[in-house]
Amino acid sequence: MSTLATVPFDDRGLAYGDGVFETVLLRDGLPVLWQYHRARLLRGCAVLAIPPPSEQALEACWQASESQASDPGLEVLKIIVTRGSGGRGYACPPDPTPRLLNHRVPFTPIPQRWKEGVSVCVCQLRLGHQPLLAGIKHLNRLENVMARREWQHPAIAEGLLADQQGNLIEATSMNVFWQQGGQLWTPRLKECGVAGTLRAALLDLGWVKEGSLPLSSLYDVERLWVANSVQGVWPVTKLVSTAGETLQRWPLAADDSLQALAHPLMGYPPDQ
Amino acid sequence: MSTLATVPFDDRGLAYGDGVFETVLLRDGLPVLWQYHRARLLRGCAVLAIPPPSEQALEACWQASESQASDPGLEVLKIIVTRGSGGRGYACPPDPTPRLLNHRVPFTPIPQRWKEGVSVCVCQLRLGHQPLLAGIKHLNRLENVMARREWQHPAIAEGLLADQQGNLIEATSMNVFWQQGGQLWTPRLKECGVAGTLRAALLDLGWVKEGSLPLSSLYDVERLWVANSVQGVWPVTKLVSTAGETLQRWPLAADDSLQALAHPLMGYPPDQ
Repeated sequence: MSTLATVPFDDRGLAYGDGVFETVLLRDGLPVLWQYHRARLLRGCAVLAIPPPSEQALEACWQASESQASDPGLEVLKIIVTRGSGGRGYACPPDPTPRLLNHRVPFTPIPQRWKEGVSVCVCQLRLGHQPLLAGIKHLNRLENVMARREWQHPAIAEGLLADQQGNLIEATSMNVFWQQGGQLWTPRLKECGVAGTLRAALLDLGWVKEGSLPLSSLYDVERLWVANSVQGVWPVTKLVSTAGETLQRWPLAADDSLQALAHPLMGYPPDQ
Repeated sequence: MSTLATVPFDDRGLAYGDGVFETVLLRDGLPVLWQYHRARLLRGCAVLAIPPPSEQALEACWQASESQASDPGLEVLKIIVTRGSGGRGYACPPDPTPRLLNHRVPFTPIPQRWKEGVSVCVCQLRLGHQPLLAGIKHLNRLENVMARREWQHPAIAEGLLADQQGNLIEATSMNVFWQQGGQLWTPRLKECGVAGTLRAALLDLGWVKEGSLPLSSLYDVERLWVANSVQGVWPVTKLVSTAGETLQRWPLAADDSLQALAHPLMGYPPDQ
């Protein structure tokens, strides 16, 4: 584990959330879905017009130094890129020197949630529309923080988030998938939401389509999942209130179609 | 000038913009409009459920130490409060230890802009609606950063921002005021925007009312200003494109009504 880096008071990541980040699963020292993490980070830098880190600097975030053997097992690597210091107020410095920081911690997934499914609630907070920033994993995450504050009940694994029009967008730290008419779907993220890397891989492979789901139709979907590139795929078996009362149930499938597709991409067991 | 404080990688202000800030004009070491800055900072902490700093800690941000005489003249003091380190992902730590940071720099206002007025453009970016966070000065400021990137022309002093419905909200780092029917107005900020401290004082004193102004009606206002608690009041004399072409002109008033009201609150000369 590396020591914690610091940033100064005038770093624009701290001052304005002016930067992007990635949270990467490392398996025996190797990053899972790395090309997708790399692509999203570079896309985020392009959207914000932050000079991107070099390939070498990015790879050094996960490559073990020569004196340090890769740890066996699972870790989570977090990478932050900020625009660095400077500028006058919101105005960006003309020639910024971005900061690239990283830190890794051991990680243990929760196989019980793969096997038995999870309960989720619907958050009251509605995500604001900002097409310019939609999809990228920028450092302005107060909506996610505030949504996550809506429940304390330990049996609730995630909170679903809709936009101002009431369309399902994501969960607080995961993407959402549903099955309808035998097809797997995930919300379009043109106006808000974070486009997860596991989601991107599943779309690229043609295994999932982008669609729209009003919250009012949530009760009617055949199956529902929350998933990300670190935790894997959790089938949703219950929709509950933030107090924990059951609002809807979905049976646990004998074979989980989304896990069977996604988990091999991540090195997790493909089925329950 | 104090040395720059640092925050660690896991500070939630850096990670998520999970915090608030204030930018305070110091005149001979004393903060201008302090009660309004203090009130907004505490309201921001309350909205985000961040334990507020003590009165003593807050005042220590501007009180000169015994060994250090107050500098004469003007400075800008920036105060940042973050939720501190910790928590699992977006979930807040149950008992957070917030960080309170501050830094001051010398400041020189721009009397030419008080006297001769300024040119402003209208930014393409539309502010997203998020009523939960509207008004407070939180650290999620990518919209302001991206809006400020829309123009480079040195003759443009500010960029006006509208919301997704096309209603005027603010400028990138200032509030907006207009005169119509002899009354002074400023946009309602229920859905987005930062409620400035000078704006708050003018509203409290009953000198300005909250109203709504579609961008399409901008051409029809009698007078227009941008203002904040550091720069004071700049009359807008020209609306220009981001390339600098003139779209509308307003004559410079012989006596500036908003400056006459606002500048005495700030210790600036009340008129041109």
